[in-house]
Amino acid sequence: MIKVGIIGGAGYTAGELIRILLNHPQAELTFVQSGSNGGNLLSDVHTDLLGDTDIKFVAEADFSLIDVAFFCMGHGKSKEFLQKNTIPENVKIIDLSHDFRLKREGNEFVYGLPELNRELIRKSNRIANPGCFATGIQLAVLPLAAAGLIKDELHVNAITGSTGAGQAPSQTSHFSWRNNNVSVYKAFEHQHLGEIGQSFKQLQPNFNFDINFIPVRGNHTRGIFASVYTKFDGSLEEAVKLYQDYYASHPFVFVSQTNPDLKQVVNTNKAIVYLEKHGNKLMILSVTDNLLKGASGQAVQNMNLIFGLEETLGLNLKAVAF
Amino acid sequence: MIKVGIIGGAGYTAGELIRILLNHPQAELTFVQSGSNGGNLLSDVHTDLLGDTDIKFVAEADFSLIDVAFFCMGHGKSKEFLQKNTIPENVKIIDLSHDFRLKREGNEFVYGLPELNRELIRKSNRIANPGCFATGIQLAVLPLAAAGLIKDELHVNAITGSTGAGQAPSQTSHFSWRNNNVSVYKAFEHQHLGEIGQSFKQLQPNFNFDINFIPVRGNHTRGIFASVYTKFDGSLEEAVKLYQDYYASHPFVFVSQTNPDLKQVVNTNKAIVYLEKHGNKLMILSVTDNLLKGASGQAVQNMNLIFGLEETLGLNLKAVAF
Amino acid sequence: MIKVGIIGGAGYTAGELIRILLNHPQAELTFVQSGSNGGNLLSDVHTDLLGDTDIKFVAEADFSLIDVAFFCMGHGKSKEFLQKNTIPENVKIIDLSHDFRLKREGNEFVYGLPELNRELIRKSNRIANPGCFATGIQLAVLPLAAAGLIKDELHVNAITGSTGAGQAPSQTSHFSWRNNNVSVYKAFEHQHLGEIGQSFKQLQPNFNFDINFIPVRGNHTRGIFASVYTKFDGSLEEAVKLYQDYYASHPFVFVSQTNPDLKQVVNTNKAIVYLEKHGNKLMILSVTDNLLKGASGQAVQNMNLIFGLEETLGLNLKAVAF
Amino acid sequence: MIKVGIIGGAGYTAGELIRILLNHPQAELTFVQSGSNGGNLLSDVHTDLLGDTDIKFVAEADFSLIDVAFFCMGHGKSKEFLQKNTIPENVKIIDLSHDFRLKREGNEFVYGLPELNRELIRKSNRIANPGCFATGIQLAVLPLAAAGLIKDELHVNAITGSTGAGQAPSQTSHFSWRNNNVSVYKAFEHQHLGEIGQSFKQLQPNFNFDINFIPVRGNHTRGIFASVYTKFDGSLEEAVKLYQDYYASHPFVFVSQTNPDLKQVVNTNKAIVYLEKHGNKLMILSVTDNLLKGASGQAVQNMNLIFGLEETLGLNLKAVAF
Repeated sequence: MIKVGIIGGAGYTAGELIRILLNHPQAELTFVQSGSNGGNLLSDVHTDLLGDTDIKFVAEADFSLIDVAFFCMGHGKSKEFLQKNTIPENVKIIDLSHDFRLKREGNEFVYGLPELNRELIRKSNRIANPGCFATGIQLAVLPLAAAGLIKDELHVNAITGSTGAGQAPSQTSHFSWRNNNVSVYKAFEHQHLGEIGQSFKQLQPNFNFDINFIPVRGNHTRGIFASVYTKFDGSLEEAVKLYQDYYASHPFVFVSQTNPDLKQVVNTNKAIVYLEKHGNKLMILSVTDNLLKGASGQAVQNMNLIFGLEETLGLNLKAVAF
Repeated sequence: MIKVGIIGGAGYTAGELIRILLNHPQAELTFVQSGSNGGNLLSDVHTDLLGDTDIKFVAEADFSLIDVAFFCMGHGKSKEFLQKNTIPENVKIIDLSHDFRLKREGNEFVYGLPELNRELIRKSNRIANPGCFATGIQLAVLPLAAAGLIKDELHVNAITGSTGAGQAPSQTSHFSWRNNNVSVYKAFEHQHLGEIGQSFKQLQPNFNFDINFIPVRGNHTRGIFASVYTKFDGSLEEAVKLYQDYYASHPFVFVSQTNPDLKQVVNTNKAIVYLEKHGNKLMILSVTDNLLKGASGQAVQNMNLIFGLEETLGLNLKAVAF
Repeated sequence: MIKVGIIGGAGYTAGELIRILLNHPQAELTFVQSGSNGGNLLSDVHTDLLGDTDIKFVAEADFSLIDVAFFCMGHGKSKEFLQKNTIPENVKIIDLSHDFRLKREGNEFVYGLPELNRELIRKSNRIANPGCFATGIQLAVLPLAAAGLIKDELHVNAITGSTGAGQAPSQTSHFSWRNNNVSVYKAFEHQHLGEIGQSFKQLQPNFNFDINFIPVRGNHTRGIFASVYTKFDGSLEEAVKLYQDYYASHPFVFVSQTNPDLKQVVNTNKAIVYLEKHGNKLMILSVTDNLLKGASGQAVQNMNLIFGLEETLGLNLKAVAF
Repeated sequence: MIKVGIIGGAGYTAGELIRILLNHPQAELTFVQSGSNGGNLLSDVHTDLLGDTDIKFVAEADFSLIDVAFFCMGHGKSKEFLQKNTIPENVKIIDLSHDFRLKREGNEFVYGLPELNRELIRKSNRIANPGCFATGIQLAVLPLAAAGLIKDELHVNAITGSTGAGQAPSQTSHFSWRNNNVSVYKAFEHQHLGEIGQSFKQLQPNFNFDINFIPVRGNHTRGIFASVYTKFDGSLEEAVKLYQDYYASHPFVFVSQTNPDLKQVVNTNKAIVYLEKHGNKLMILSVTDNLLKGASGQAVQNMNLIFGLEETLGLNLKAVAF
């Protein structure tokens, strides 16, 4: 059994990790740390866990007890934590923040998108888990990039659920405001553009095109619906084959023959991509659950890879469907 | 033109008042006061007003300029405000808080439910506007009380939208939590029980029965759906006639012959009541918009009465319907 | 491995059964029958199954291939089916319709509420799976009935999600109508009252009180939030102990110490009950997922019991939480 | 008073027309025709009208009684109706279908977008009311086209509410499916592209660029949130001035200085547009209510223009806001 610790256990992504790990056949939740919740039951905070576990939060993490730590502290705080604390070399770290996603000198973290870096992940001790928008958008484009076929700028629109913004209350997370509402934020400037471009360049070194990305706040809770289009010379059949071949060995990504909807993947670790050709444009739709394939599910997928387990272990989750 | 001031202009009920009054043919919005928003445009806060008005908030109210003040400061604060400020006698006050709803020695406010106290309201300078739950529930029961026919305890369940809790963020107003969720709060102990019981006693002095009231948080934004039942000896036809007669002269309350749904009244000042008889029980359903008939619409209805205007003036609002 | 057949495979409850059974460690989906979908992929109809299975619907069921059949044909059709078809004696039947829930001469089906009839279910070949409202309401009251402590009429309000009405389109299932809407139907006369009363009488033979039940259509998709209250002489502590003792051996029902919300159980087979005492009334809240504990999850729980498996096998489902 | 008839009175757009016209100071609802509802009360179908009117549907329209007819029969049926019926010359027709929106020989209808064709509308007897998507998208681009500044292809994404698809039940209008869901349909091929391109060519005759349009089904009921971007050489300030100047004389379109959200306009006839410049791209956001500015509100705006009334008469509608 893999002994797991979670650092920053009170937020949404930690909650999802706990939900998954409590049923994971090869993982054992050794501790869940939360500075503000030490001594409280996990189910005091993640109330759906009532009856599932009697574990309590610890205020301080003891890294000598675990094999792997999931960092769920929030953006900027992982870096700070690692500066203040020494983690034993043998403890793997899977960081869900954006702190280590961009390659820089001295950054030993591997970008943890299995559909891009599976072999690297398997050999790594330090994983920077991708952002949710970044995951959905990359899965829509990776096969093109891998074939060197991004030939023009990309046009991206992605609608996210409210859980993408975390649990801190804000005007735009207020139910009275968000219910039945739609809005756009950080158009063309979202912070995930960096990691997206980095991955495209990794696969297609001459990639040097604009990614015109409009992020949209939807009035749902879970899931990202992304549409991407760009110029593409080949036929639809060629594109579909490219995608099918690319994802043939990846157990969570499926190329749909029919126009998908978001709830096909909500509460699962799956991604569905779908292609249409219109004129000289190839459109790709991609649907993912921002908290699972876009965060905690992918983090467990990475854990499975690191520890040499079946990639899907513990991740055959029942879709909510409705 | 009636010159109107609003005190505490940044919240939900103030916003609704402004929306109504900007189109009211006999009212003129003289000022909207907000301590934290002085100098800002109304449309900076109530953003749907963009293009409808260029009025700015004032930080301080000048009561010498107005004929009537609506108090939208929040519960407890109206009382405090009146202790600290002297309002000219001729300025009418319509208070939307719960501070003056209960009769007490020295409380000169009239309880502003027109379907209960229309004549008193017409002659009053000080109105305590009813609570939203209180309005919906009373409208379901007033005709029985007026006929002295409450003979047993009342069983009440009422589901409210999120706007009933105001705009302050809280766990239960977070979209990620409230979307698709249901919960109960303050069962049997809601603060509106006092004013409800007071009204029933006013009409039926021997009223002395439990009001078993379960308030429910629904996953919608606007509207209260209340169900009430109690023992009733008469026939359904007798009950329906009782209700039709009672509400015949009241322009906003309608006795429906068919089972109603909430959206029949959302964004209007109307109330719909509907009756069924089952065994020895009479069930009454009542639907209202908590921000209109349950707050700001009713406040304007009271203003119309005080100033001798047509009761419905400015209140023929288009239902949102969907 | 238990070989499973599903009859009537295109509806909501069949979809949920498939989602559960594909991950059940001791069950094997031998066939899914659907008259109108023979030859189509399961994932053509239940589109979230894309990538999870390549099974196709069969038009005709072959009962010689299976150990257990789930009947998901809709109310009235199970009876008809059994009249027209002979099912081998050794094939267990778990019927999700209301056709066999009420005891009648010649009805050999056991009412499949494990928290009421676990031992009977273990020995039975024919199970009538309870209704969704019936499950939620009974779980709120069974401990009282078992102790002979229902002493007065019961007051019940239960809000259900849209999936409770199945997938056939209707005015009240139209998104434009139901979104942000609330309504009541079949007040005091819902068809589940029969099975509810039958169970209470089974535990408390002198039970002879009105069950005043108001069913409410909520604007969510999954889950039933039920509130029940009745007169109760004991203290809250006594009531809580009664419930804890009753449910101590039942792995899916939990007595919460804190006020619950619906999403604590959505997408799980769990039920949470919660108690408050107000005056001489005991209020019980009960939350369940209508498609799982209220239908397909409970059906699998019954299958587990019949085949001598761990009651929870395959039913540790990740809550959707948001 | 203008005497108004509505043909095809049972659908969503007819309902909205009725809601508006009942409060319109210069219009009188002479009849509402519906083949399937003759003799029924309007409020039997549009149930929110309970108490607002006692008018009944007529099965047959008598055009000799009216000054203007609104055609709400659905796409394809207006043409058919005009082939079978002779309408007196003096009766104005405002057709809400797509039948007459495209210029063709013999088509005497004027395309009824007041922000494009106000003077033509004033002089016309036959108006083809624009489509909802078409309205939202054109309002985002008209000032550019008028200045001849569309220099490259347009990238358009627009999210619509469920009412855009009318009241006929379908899989994608089922609440259980659509709640919390997102999907795309008719990408790059939506039928409104024709009228959009036609208007751009009218203003900028050399317009000959792709309009890459992805229509999205949102999980709200009312409103269209459109984003458009294209290459633009000028500064943001120049663009904003262009838009402000263009819309200065149009009473329903507002250029917002702050990032808008959909509910700023829901239940109103307003449109809000907002601009950002990113690199060499100008992004325009546009929010409208698909049933009002995108259909029935605009139809009344056209009626006002035809009859020489104030353009905004009867259209100062209270926003739902929440």
